[in-house]
Amino acid sequence: MSDYPKRVEIHEEGPREGFQIEPGPIPTADKVRLIEALAQTGLKEVQCVGFVDPRRVPGMADADAVAAAIRRRPGVRYTGIYLNQRGLERAMRSPLDIRGSLQMSASETFSIRNTNRNTAETIAEQRKALEFYRAHGIEVRSAIVMTAFGCNFEGTITPERVRDCVGILIDLAADYDVRIPMMGLADTVGWGNPLGLARVVEMIRARWPDLRLGLHLHDTRGAGMANALMGLQLGIDSFDSSCAGLGGCPFAGHKGAAGNICTEDFVFLCHEMGIATGIDLDALIDCARMAEEIVGHPLPGKVMRSGSLTRFRMAA
Amino acid sequence: MSDYPKRVEIHEEGPREGFQIEPGPIPTADKVRLIEALAQTGLKEVQCVGFVDPRRVPGMADADAVAAAIRRRPGVRYTGIYLNQRGLERAMRSPLDIRGSLQMSASETFSIRNTNRNTAETIAEQRKALEFYRAHGIEVRSAIVMTAFGCNFEGTITPERVRDCVGILIDLAADYDVRIPMMGLADTVGWGNPLGLARVVEMIRARWPDLRLGLHLHDTRGAGMANALMGLQLGIDSFDSSCAGLGGCPFAGHKGAAGNICTEDFVFLCHEMGIATGIDLDALIDCARMAEEIVGHPLPGKVMRSGSLTRFRMAA
Repeated sequence: MSDYPKRVEIHEEGPREGFQIEPGPIPTADKVRLIEALAQTGLKEVQCVGFVDPRRVPGMADADAVAAAIRRRPGVRYTGIYLNQRGLERAMRSPLDIRGSLQMSASETFSIRNTNRNTAETIAEQRKALEFYRAHGIEVRSAIVMTAFGCNFEGTITPERVRDCVGILIDLAADYDVRIPMMGLADTVGWGNPLGLARVVEMIRARWPDLRLGLHLHDTRGAGMANALMGLQLGIDSFDSSCAGLGGCPFAGHKGAAGNICTEDFVFLCHEMGIATGIDLDALIDCARMAEEIVGHPLPGKVMRSGSLTRFRMAA
Repeated sequence: MSDYPKRVEIHEEGPREGFQIEPGPIPTADKVRLIEALAQTGLKEVQCVGFVDPRRVPGMADADAVAAAIRRRPGVRYTGIYLNQRGLERAMRSPLDIRGSLQMSASETFSIRNTNRNTAETIAEQRKALEFYRAHGIEVRSAIVMTAFGCNFEGTITPERVRDCVGILIDLAADYDVRIPMMGLADTVGWGNPLGLARVVEMIRARWPDLRLGLHLHDTRGAGMANALMGLQLGIDSFDSSCAGLGGCPFAGHKGAAGNICTEDFVFLCHEMGIATGIDLDALIDCARMAEEIVGHPLPGKVMRSGSLTRFRMAA
């Protein structure tokens, strides 16, 4: 009945997703400590900071300092996000790895709220990014369609609209002789449900059967892990997630915005189902506990409280 | 690929699961207030109290008082649990509805810890219950196999063991000319994963294709909603859940304890997938917020924070 992958790739986004939304200042050293611990767990990519306007996102004001302080572990990619050319140039000046990426939002209203750009302006910005990547020899590793499963401002997003966004990104890249190796679909504001997600995936695959898809799922309404399971059943093998469930989107339009699916809970789910992640779950649980200690308030992760089954299995 | 039900039946267990675990005393009037509000949402069954030893479960010391105070809404069943004959007799003296049920644990060690009875003693106790039901004209509505997906003491529970437990319960009931209309499988300590759950369900169905199954899922390790989705895909249409995720509060000093899947998050999932529940989601969200106000600390439910999509859909 399903096409579970044997192995999934997990991109840790907790440090960026989480520390951008915390109301109080988090010491730079604590951010670096968590990032370095995460890089010890087997995670191959950790999104560390956002190179964004510190007036809009005060929690990322020390992005350059965080990036500079990380002691790197070989084999791990340390990335940051950027929403425009200025952010990309900051990322280039940092020691972080540049994850060449394209992005657009299926909801134009969300796009305007999130990046101050409508769809046409977003497309123009992606062309600039593609030119920049070409000029600097940066590999395009992924593209992402935000608000792919619904939007607080525009409501329902049709699968056709998401397919069209995917097509726009593929065509844009093709203009620069770039083939997008992974297309992410983001449930930015937690509207997704498993059947709606499957419809979007099926519509995209009908057009581009070989396009690798990834999921970026926010657990705003508790359906995150159900959506992730559906993704696995559809054979999707690339997921973004946040350690301890850190995060949320500050521009989502309401206070209930929640973080990505929790990395260690998702790793637990995968391992129990026989799907490899390459991650040491118990080490990751230690990171989640560290994250909670750093932010100083409870975070939503579950396995970090109950523990993995390792100890129980050994005792039994 | 799936056999989703058109409609699911949800048994609300929050008042019993939640108030039995809270460290501080909850006023009887508050318990009654929540139960009455839940009964206004379209829920057809609310588990109100546990008729258990108040020395072991101080939060249930006022069970008789709660049961007596509820103003009943027609068409709603108000139930309580009991772990032995004495509890059942207390339930009979209360105005609550008796949900005639049988129970055993797939893990004998868990059985001993939970009820002070080994498997043989549990079977003897079920015979006593069946005799009592017959003597009092009480309909047997369900049976449940606890620790069906794993046990903290015994570790892995094989699907064969669960199938055998189901067989024991069916045969016991048959000795009293009773046909069990619904067999519940409980992930009592949060070991379940979707594939393991499917294996258990398939093994039971291979023997008893027409047996109606139900799920009682604890969200101890974050896999609760993924397990629930798998249950829906297998056509299971009866679920226990807890308003606001009551019963497992990481903030209440019960390290690692987690409640059932959250009722309103599950109702949200079902409705978004076109599965009817008969429940008014927004009214249920109000109950979840009331539950959080009553216990005085954050509860794990998600939709109660972000809201349903109704308002956004109307605005869009």
